[in-house]
Amino acid sequence: MIKIEQLLETLKTEFASHSYGTSPAELYDPIRYIMSLGGKRFRPLLTLLSASLYTDDWQHALKPAMAVEVFHNFTLMHDDIMDNAPLRRGKPTVHEKWNPNTAILSGDVMLIKAYELLIHVPESQLRNVIERFNTTAAEVCEGQQLDMNFETRWDVTEEQYLEMIRLKTSVVLGMSLELGGIIGEADAAEKALLYKAGESMGLGFQLKDDLLDVYGDPEKFGKQVGGDIISNKKTFLLIEALAKASGEIRNELDRWISAETFNKEEKVEAVKNIYNKLGIYEITENKIKAYFKTGISNLENLNVPSERKDILLAFVHQLVEREH
Amino acid sequence: MIKIEQLLETLKTEFASHSYGTSPAELYDPIRYIMSLGGKRFRPLLTLLSASLYTDDWQHALKPAMAVEVFHNFTLMHDDIMDNAPLRRGKPTVHEKWNPNTAILSGDVMLIKAYELLIHVPESQLRNVIERFNTTAAEVCEGQQLDMNFETRWDVTEEQYLEMIRLKTSVVLGMSLELGGIIGEADAAEKALLYKAGESMGLGFQLKDDLLDVYGDPEKFGKQVGGDIISNKKTFLLIEALAKASGEIRNELDRWISAETFNKEEKVEAVKNIYNKLGIYEITENKIKAYFKTGISNLENLNVPSERKDILLAFVHQLVEREH
Repeated sequence: MIKIEQLLETLKTEFASHSYGTSPAELYDPIRYIMSLGGKRFRPLLTLLSASLYTDDWQHALKPAMAVEVFHNFTLMHDDIMDNAPLRRGKPTVHEKWNPNTAILSGDVMLIKAYELLIHVPESQLRNVIERFNTTAAEVCEGQQLDMNFETRWDVTEEQYLEMIRLKTSVVLGMSLELGGIIGEADAAEKALLYKAGESMGLGFQLKDDLLDVYGDPEKFGKQVGGDIISNKKTFLLIEALAKASGEIRNELDRWISAETFNKEEKVEAVKNIYNKLGIYEITENKIKAYFKTGISNLENLNVPSERKDILLAFVHQLVEREH
Repeated sequence: MIKIEQLLETLKTEFASHSYGTSPAELYDPIRYIMSLGGKRFRPLLTLLSASLYTDDWQHALKPAMAVEVFHNFTLMHDDIMDNAPLRRGKPTVHEKWNPNTAILSGDVMLIKAYELLIHVPESQLRNVIERFNTTAAEVCEGQQLDMNFETRWDVTEEQYLEMIRLKTSVVLGMSLELGGIIGEADAAEKALLYKAGESMGLGFQLKDDLLDVYGDPEKFGKQVGGDIISNKKTFLLIEALAKASGEIRNELDRWISAETFNKEEKVEAVKNIYNKLGIYEITENKIKAYFKTGISNLENLNVPSERKDILLAFVHQLVEREH
């Protein structure tokens, strides 16, 4: 029986010994840097866990699993330029530590390196793997563009927001799980269940991020609670509040949104209070639960012996219950 | 017997009807825009001509050929951001017409779209095609990084410069020809000759660009003659001149390079005069001829009936003799 710790240890060793390229150093150092910043590696872990549902040779999924993580970090490197973010996991972002041009070009070669890792699959799986990766990668770009478009729009609907986060973040979780299914030679119905499970849970995770930013325990959350409120970030909570608020509550919300100078704690407290009056916590929490329920039930419906499923389900439950 | 015009017309029709994606428009409009700016399409043309050496079904090479052109235009879109270039083929660059973030993200999705086009090959060729594309694409990034590194260096050797342009521009021509060979089921020796031919001619083309910038006919050249001299661009000519100049000539060259204000025509005339004294024209011209000779002789050594080779050779001779 495989263990999560064993898989994580293997991933850690593989990433540490993997050569992305050497020369010129200015191109490859930023890749080693961003990959060294850590992260929970839960995308490649999902691929390994998913492959291990169908085969004991989960090691065959290692390089494609790493491809997903390299791709994810490529998107972080480029997103950080676009978002003008100074920090990533508490360390300077690549465009800050080097410069934007280096972050553009290192990101480009990272995407290519993801394809290099991805093709370590048998001939019979190659097309399927690349097609799914291509589609997903393009969708992530579409999601990022929608996210940027939404920054200057105040008429974003719940449906549009959910579609944006589905594209920007959830499809990669769907692909992570599906990829393991492809490598494990699962049939089409199984692969569809795996993808849907990842996509659904991905939506849940993103909404949970939105929720924890306001309602999270500051001790566990690791970043400033209320950051999204301070920056007027269009989260699920704000979009719901804008759709539901009327009369004096709406006026108050609009005043806080358009205020150019304000006391940060006061704004967070006030907007949180508005959310409470509108029942935003419960609305969001119910939505999250529904997504997690769909995701887990898709996994439970997989046609594999329950002892194989237990480790994946245990891991997913642990993800679902995290408070940070 | 196929004709160049027929191939170009087919490429034009295919590019015009190809859908890169639709929504969000902000992501896909810049792709349609940069692809509409034109260009000679000679990379995909080389792929089609190369495939037609081995098969009458050159149409099978169409989508992979288009992948090469989409990849090339992706590099232009990102290079233009890095070079802060205002114009591309006389029109505003994507980052100028939209903004840098859009140019980063549209470029990213363009690279993915190149992979989508590339995989339209039979199962048996797929891995070979993707591996060659991955290697080449990473090399192009390495070349661009070296090019940026060279901007602030004054000790670049001829050898380093040639390696930079080989990576940045020549390997794509090598791959363009090799790709046609893979699709035409050519054997390993043939594919190696095709690649070497493209690589060698690519080096010749780049040196010819360097030469024409100084010695080209202003009527035919289409851009300001001497632009590279005015901007102190480290071309093959300047690197040779720096290596050869000594005494008063070296002092004069250094003065022009470090001059912060100057009359443009005067600087172009003076540096050109230094090049003339040092025999730079002949050195460069001989190097170009040698590269073209190697390239053409590799093509002549291909093991295919001469009637099949004639159109490719005729096209290559035409490229070699162009004066703009």
